[in-house]
Amino acid sequence: MITGKNHIGYQLSATGTNTFKTINPKQNATTEWEFHEASIDEVDEAAQLASKAFETYRNFSGERKAVFLNTIAQEIEALGDELLETYMAESGLPKGRAQGERGRTLFQLRSMAELLIEGSWVEAIIDTAIRDRKPVPKPDLRKMLIPIGPIAVFGSSNFPLAYSTAGGDTATALAAGCPVIVKSHPMHAGTGELVASAIVKAAMRTEMPDGIFSNLNSSGIEVGQQLVSHPSIKGVGFTGSIAGGTALAKLACEREEPIPVFAEMGSINPVVVLPSALKKNAGRWAQAYASSITLGSGQFCTNPGLILGFKSASMQNFISQLGDQLLKTGPGLMLHPKIHGNYEETKHNLSTEEGTSVIAAYKEEVGANYAQQLLLTVDGKTFMRNPALHKEVFGPFSLVVQCENQAEMRRILKRLEGQLTGTVLGEPKEMKEFEDIIEALRGRVGRIIHNGVPTGVEVCPAMQHGGPFPASTDSRFGAVGASAIRRWVRPVSYQDWPQELLPDALKDKNPLGILRMVNGSYSNSPIY
Amino acid sequence: MITGKNHIGYQLSATGTNTFKTINPKQNATTEWEFHEASIDEVDEAAQLASKAFETYRNFSGERKAVFLNTIAQEIEALGDELLETYMAESGLPKGRAQGERGRTLFQLRSMAELLIEGSWVEAIIDTAIRDRKPVPKPDLRKMLIPIGPIAVFGSSNFPLAYSTAGGDTATALAAGCPVIVKSHPMHAGTGELVASAIVKAAMRTEMPDGIFSNLNSSGIEVGQQLVSHPSIKGVGFTGSIAGGTALAKLACEREEPIPVFAEMGSINPVVVLPSALKKNAGRWAQAYASSITLGSGQFCTNPGLILGFKSASMQNFISQLGDQLLKTGPGLMLHPKIHGNYEETKHNLSTEEGTSVIAAYKEEVGANYAQQLLLTVDGKTFMRNPALHKEVFGPFSLVVQCENQAEMRRILKRLEGQLTGTVLGEPKEMKEFEDIIEALRGRVGRIIHNGVPTGVEVCPAMQHGGPFPASTDSRFGAVGASAIRRWVRPVSYQDWPQELLPDALKDKNPLGILRMVNGSYSNSPIY
Repeated sequence: MITGKNHIGYQLSATGTNTFKTINPKQNATTEWEFHEASIDEVDEAAQLASKAFETYRNFSGERKAVFLNTIAQEIEALGDELLETYMAESGLPKGRAQGERGRTLFQLRSMAELLIEGSWVEAIIDTAIRDRKPVPKPDLRKMLIPIGPIAVFGSSNFPLAYSTAGGDTATALAAGCPVIVKSHPMHAGTGELVASAIVKAAMRTEMPDGIFSNLNSSGIEVGQQLVSHPSIKGVGFTGSIAGGTALAKLACEREEPIPVFAEMGSINPVVVLPSALKKNAGRWAQAYASSITLGSGQFCTNPGLILGFKSASMQNFISQLGDQLLKTGPGLMLHPKIHGNYEETKHNLSTEEGTSVIAAYKEEVGANYAQQLLLTVDGKTFMRNPALHKEVFGPFSLVVQCENQAEMRRILKRLEGQLTGTVLGEPKEMKEFEDIIEALRGRVGRIIHNGVPTGVEVCPAMQHGGPFPASTDSRFGAVGASAIRRWVRPVSYQDWPQELLPDALKDKNPLGILRMVNGSYSNSPIY
Repeated sequence: MITGKNHIGYQLSATGTNTFKTINPKQNATTEWEFHEASIDEVDEAAQLASKAFETYRNFSGERKAVFLNTIAQEIEALGDELLETYMAESGLPKGRAQGERGRTLFQLRSMAELLIEGSWVEAIIDTAIRDRKPVPKPDLRKMLIPIGPIAVFGSSNFPLAYSTAGGDTATALAAGCPVIVKSHPMHAGTGELVASAIVKAAMRTEMPDGIFSNLNSSGIEVGQQLVSHPSIKGVGFTGSIAGGTALAKLACEREEPIPVFAEMGSINPVVVLPSALKKNAGRWAQAYASSITLGSGQFCTNPGLILGFKSASMQNFISQLGDQLLKTGPGLMLHPKIHGNYEETKHNLSTEEGTSVIAAYKEEVGANYAQQLLLTVDGKTFMRNPALHKEVFGPFSLVVQCENQAEMRRILKRLEGQLTGTVLGEPKEMKEFEDIIEALRGRVGRIIHNGVPTGVEVCPAMQHGGPFPASTDSRFGAVGASAIRRWVRPVSYQDWPQELLPDALKDKNPLGILRMVNGSYSNSPIY
């Protein structure tokens, strides 16, 4: 049941006076619930509780944390249709997507639980003592990862489940041993509250400390600012706009004790089309990219918003096929009137930039909050001159840049802002010829794809979701997959520490049976 | 030969008009050399060259980079006595220390070369495709670490070799594949230039691209600021004061493209003395700590500046023994008149804070720039109330805090700023009793030591040198040992990338024979 209240640890709380509502984009009307914005006191209480919870939670065994994560997954499943219906009402996304995203959320939670049970993620490194070394003895040193403290999580608008309340950031932070305070996304506060209630239930059932999780409602920026500035908060996970992420990162930097912010922000995901890709496969790629551009109404962070090719008849042919395919796709409902309004505005702005021309624009009448897809083109010179053309358009939009030659495309790629992904379409043989272009592209992205589409982010250890700024604030980390846990941990070394007082991960006997680096070699064995 | 010029890539350059001199603290007089401050144009040129060098260097094989690093070590050795004499002249440190530190520098360079030849440091992770997976095929994904770009290195005052021009930051950045621009430390610009000349010689001999390394002279803050703000610079390594490191981190945050700064800053390295440590070993610990406090005239980042114990007769006895031992130690020459002046000033300030009293103060006449050691004491309540007492005093100084009880010590430790190290003296059995104190200490430090002294930082994989702010700007990384390379790299994923175009580390055949995680299991084998 949705109460509209905040979860401050185990308590439902609504001491603030400001309220807001979420919107059903399909009905273009507010939903039935009224949400109470978290007050200054509630934010503070959540942070204090998290700090207190951290004192015990940080030392919980992997197994115990795994039981918690698995129970969260169970409790989310137990929300049943109410969750799916709330999700659909607040996002306009279809049932299949709701189910799929719930599946991904559960998978992420359960994967982190598995990681905890396996245990090697703590990166235990042991260098045993050499007491008779000259001129000075070598001490015994043992290092492992420990959690940094309470994490503030800002969920995304476009993944109400998988990258929100119990999404990737929350799952990895809880797995790391960090309490989490979610600043609920105002566009799907009801979905958020339901998931929060599942997390709190799971916390109670598995006897987690009060304050291990809180969920704060907010439709403005103040709650988030207070949270990021709070001395008890030790790290921030954010998925959203460049403006929002950058502002929070600056705020975190200005604290008396600066804290790390991992923000996954904008990306236009450049696609380089080499001539060979258009010889046989123009039709196939036109179809694939029309699908990728309009997938989820273009509201994916990996949406291909920039297509780069060389001026030629075959490029013209590809573009026109892509335009045709795009127009054949039905227009998609967007997540929220604001997002729809923003899409219309940025689309309009780009269309009126000098030198752009329309390849395909969906013109038929559409319902409220439905996006009309648009494909523009521009030449390389104009694109390079005008940074306004490099901005992300969140929606079913792409810009085709027609370059004069290889040198021009290389210059464009080198100057491009950092991106989550870059894609190359073309035959391997030809790619060698365009090595410098591909190298420039790789330098700007976190993931480089051959003959595919950037949408669809596999959750697996080899995935990198993150890239040079502004794709993310820190390209050295990623937001998807097991390695995302590294954002919330720091190494600590124990020197000459008594065996019986060492954490299990570092004991000679290796009671957890984890993989460790012992004196330079990896091993699952005990140390004799 | 010391020219006083800047190394801008392969060129010696001195276009600026400002000059400065270094000081021989022993003679309390300037040295013979005149150093030209880098001009705005020189800084820019160094950055541009580094950016250009990065385009090729980033793809050099581990072997080729290893040859470069080993050749740097060779060329530093070839500097022979000139380097040692310059080092001694500019730092006042004795020959044994100069030789020891040179040895450590060479060891670090050669260790990184070994790491590169072994090759597994790139953390290759491969998840092979499942083309028939339903509902969608699983792509082939392969991830590894790649360099982030040119790094600005700010060397330390207290390690003219091991944490300066060719020190830990430079060695790890070059190993990662990043060109380096050193902002030379103005207190040992001659030592810096000699080492820089060795690096440049090595770069030429091994045919590295021009701009792979530059060395900029500067006695003010402008060169450093320009460097950190330069768009070509992609990361910063800094060892020095909290004020300096924090200022650079803020500057990096305010850039159009924010970049990571790893600053290793101040630390007072708290030592917790449990009652059992004083029963049999008071004399032994008094001796060990008198040595540790005065080691290198107290100019180590791991210097024990804070000793916490419980009010008791045995604590009184320990303190007085420690004071006696301290006074027996001869006064030490400091690195520079400025550092000496700063020591005298902060020492004086602390002595005049309310509630402090002197246990031991060296009173005999000393030569210019010699430090007179000081041991103060204060009760727990006063210490907690007065943050001025928590500040680092860079020199042979320590403050003993006498706590009323366990609860008070815990409160103090919990509120302490982040530290590089924390030490516990006491019997393992007793440590269980004081678990909450040790837990609070661990929460504030990067390395926790049992029955030892914090000085002496072993270079090995299990070492963590770094800690919560302000010990370092980002506790998730460290400055010593192989893992320090992680500061300068980011993961990149290749999706469905053609075998022949993959980097060797990710090819099926595993031509480098490195350890990789393939479909969830670690293996050195090829993929069949």
